[in-house]
Amino acid sequence: MTFPVVGMVGGGQLARMTHEAGIPLGVRFRLLAASPQESAAQAVSDVVLGDHRELETLRSFARGCDVITFDHEHVPTEHLRALQADGVVVRPGPDALVHAQDKGVMRARLDALGVPCPRHRIVRDVADVTAFAAEGASGAEGAGGSGDGSPGGFPVVLKTVRGGYDGKGVWLVRDEAGAAEPFRAGVPVLAEEKVDFVRELAANVVRSPHGQAVAYPVVESIQVDGVCDTVIAPAPDLPAERAVRAQELALRIAEELDVVGHLAVELFETRDGRVLVNELAMRPHNSGHWSQDGAVTSQFANHLRAVLDLPLGDPRPRARWTVMANVLGGDYPDMYAAYLHCMARDPQLKIHMYGKDVKPGRKVGHVNTYGDDLADVRERAAHAAGYLRGTIQE
Amino acid sequence: MTFPVVGMVGGGQLARMTHEAGIPLGVRFRLLAASPQESAAQAVSDVVLGDHRELETLRSFARGCDVITFDHEHVPTEHLRALQADGVVVRPGPDALVHAQDKGVMRARLDALGVPCPRHRIVRDVADVTAFAAEGASGAEGAGGSGDGSPGGFPVVLKTVRGGYDGKGVWLVRDEAGAAEPFRAGVPVLAEEKVDFVRELAANVVRSPHGQAVAYPVVESIQVDGVCDTVIAPAPDLPAERAVRAQELALRIAEELDVVGHLAVELFETRDGRVLVNELAMRPHNSGHWSQDGAVTSQFANHLRAVLDLPLGDPRPRARWTVMANVLGGDYPDMYAAYLHCMARDPQLKIHMYGKDVKPGRKVGHVNTYGDDLADVRERAAHAAGYLRGTIQE
Repeated sequence: MTFPVVGMVGGGQLARMTHEAGIPLGVRFRLLAASPQESAAQAVSDVVLGDHRELETLRSFARGCDVITFDHEHVPTEHLRALQADGVVVRPGPDALVHAQDKGVMRARLDALGVPCPRHRIVRDVADVTAFAAEGASGAEGAGGSGDGSPGGFPVVLKTVRGGYDGKGVWLVRDEAGAAEPFRAGVPVLAEEKVDFVRELAANVVRSPHGQAVAYPVVESIQVDGVCDTVIAPAPDLPAERAVRAQELALRIAEELDVVGHLAVELFETRDGRVLVNELAMRPHNSGHWSQDGAVTSQFANHLRAVLDLPLGDPRPRARWTVMANVLGGDYPDMYAAYLHCMARDPQLKIHMYGKDVKPGRKVGHVNTYGDDLADVRERAAHAAGYLRGTIQE
Repeated sequence: MTFPVVGMVGGGQLARMTHEAGIPLGVRFRLLAASPQESAAQAVSDVVLGDHRELETLRSFARGCDVITFDHEHVPTEHLRALQADGVVVRPGPDALVHAQDKGVMRARLDALGVPCPRHRIVRDVADVTAFAAEGASGAEGAGGSGDGSPGGFPVVLKTVRGGYDGKGVWLVRDEAGAAEPFRAGVPVLAEEKVDFVRELAANVVRSPHGQAVAYPVVESIQVDGVCDTVIAPAPDLPAERAVRAQELALRIAEELDVVGHLAVELFETRDGRVLVNELAMRPHNSGHWSQDGAVTSQFANHLRAVLDLPLGDPRPRARWTVMANVLGGDYPDMYAAYLHCMARDPQLKIHMYGKDVKPGRKVGHVNTYGDDLADVRERAAHAAGYLRGTIQE
């Protein structure tokens, strides 16, 4: 059969789960991984080992592929442009992906589109940060600032414009003295107001090259220590008008930025009912893992369908509530006994392990639960994730 | 992590889909395949190439595995006994598996257990067949015979006791002259009455080494030209008492034969409400493919959980009706355009392709559909399968 070859750059769990979704689709899947121990490299047949920061490695990898897509945002944008100039089909393309790679570019573009964002500015030094904070203190009305009375408009959020994830590359700065640290690496820094949000949401959409797009239900994402802990699909008690507004916003961003594949739009829901864009990701995303067991078509299957320009699958939920809880590594490296216990306790539990060595705080898997009773569905997910981590002993 | 390695012998689509189910479980999957082009070998990272009929190949393969299981029944029983003697964990074990390998052994054991079967006998020549047929003509009452008035009790079904599948190794013999063919290969032949069944059913169960077992809903299996065409889960209009009787029968067979893993019990439902055992398979089975999209836990995931002696997952259906239709190869080798069309027509369609070259009549994939309206669910599955094969043009 003349089924196409999809090349995915990056050997993490997102590639592992995309491969899993590609098996029933008959997609031939090729992986560029850094080592054979990486999560996806353990499961994929066709693995090329190499460094995604080297153009010649990328060129060689791309020769065997009909389309190239990504497990992460870390391929240098100029390499993607070079591949595109070679004639390689890169999806999402560099002109879209740069908005998920560089937070400065992303904020400038969203401003130009009139998309609501937290107040922000590129800052070059501590004095810039102090000035940015002071403006927030004086002009608090309507700015969504926390207004918690900290001196001079602090706290402020500082982020490196490239390379951050899961709380890395992000600082919550409470005063002028704390603002020095982010500048030490010598990379550009973005300052953002600390939004006084009620909760975090994510609006996930998938778009194909000929412009078909689907929107998943808007989910609530609960972070602990800057890392996603729990996702609830759909977001409980979200007014329908606000959910539709968030979906439309994500669809509009996907179209304006010419995104191909899965786009996760992480949002802050404010006390006054606005939704502000926090981050963009142009790949399958942690906030979409619930869709593996909770939607007709998972984010991974739809990402593949999109990058192949195939018709997209139905994104609708299969259950009233689906809850995803991340499994983080605990102190004990062998999770197998806990895993067996969780299966025995809850025969409906859907476990997704990544094949990674357990290290404290590292994402090594997730669980999905679904059902009609949200309290029960949440308890089951939280119990399994906690038991696997070792924070629940019973 | 100390997750176990499951070795599967055989590189067909059942191994491919078992690997797919093993990825979220974190199971490390090792495959013994005959060639890198085989269905499963295309998707699995850890592939050993070799001949499953050679003991030394099996021994070498087993050394890297915590447990060995099977994609097919073709490993010689004596090799499995030798592996077991070596200390290899073989699941299902040879004493169970021989009942799925040898139809003569299976019939003798089911007789001893008092399990209802079609009338049957091992036959050595045409004279034996004629005598077997004549007995059916004279003693038709209560025997389930077709009683269609053919001379001398014909037709009769002849089967080679080993090696048949998908209609191969099976003959419907209408008279004495037709009875010669099956004996030409010089292998033992089993004669069975041609059962006057209303329809075919399958009762699928999964059993673990410590004796936990789960029963899937009893399904209807529709064959065309001796090959499974459509499976409907649950079997429509099956009286609850009969469904429970079939499930209990399958659970009892699994226990008595000490089956570990998935057991498919193919059944004839007769006009007078009996269920007779047609065939046994001790591996994931075509009649269980609906469970990938239609049950909380698929047959593939539960087979892996069973052979690892993990607690089993919930086998209950997620939809009122799920229909599976096999995709057979047609005359045109490239299915990709048809595949795209099917996705566009039905965004809820679940396609499962096996990565096999298209040959006329060859199983190259299947589709699953589900929903509340059985007529609609059946139409969608039949349309997609027919369109992919090329028998439907619209």
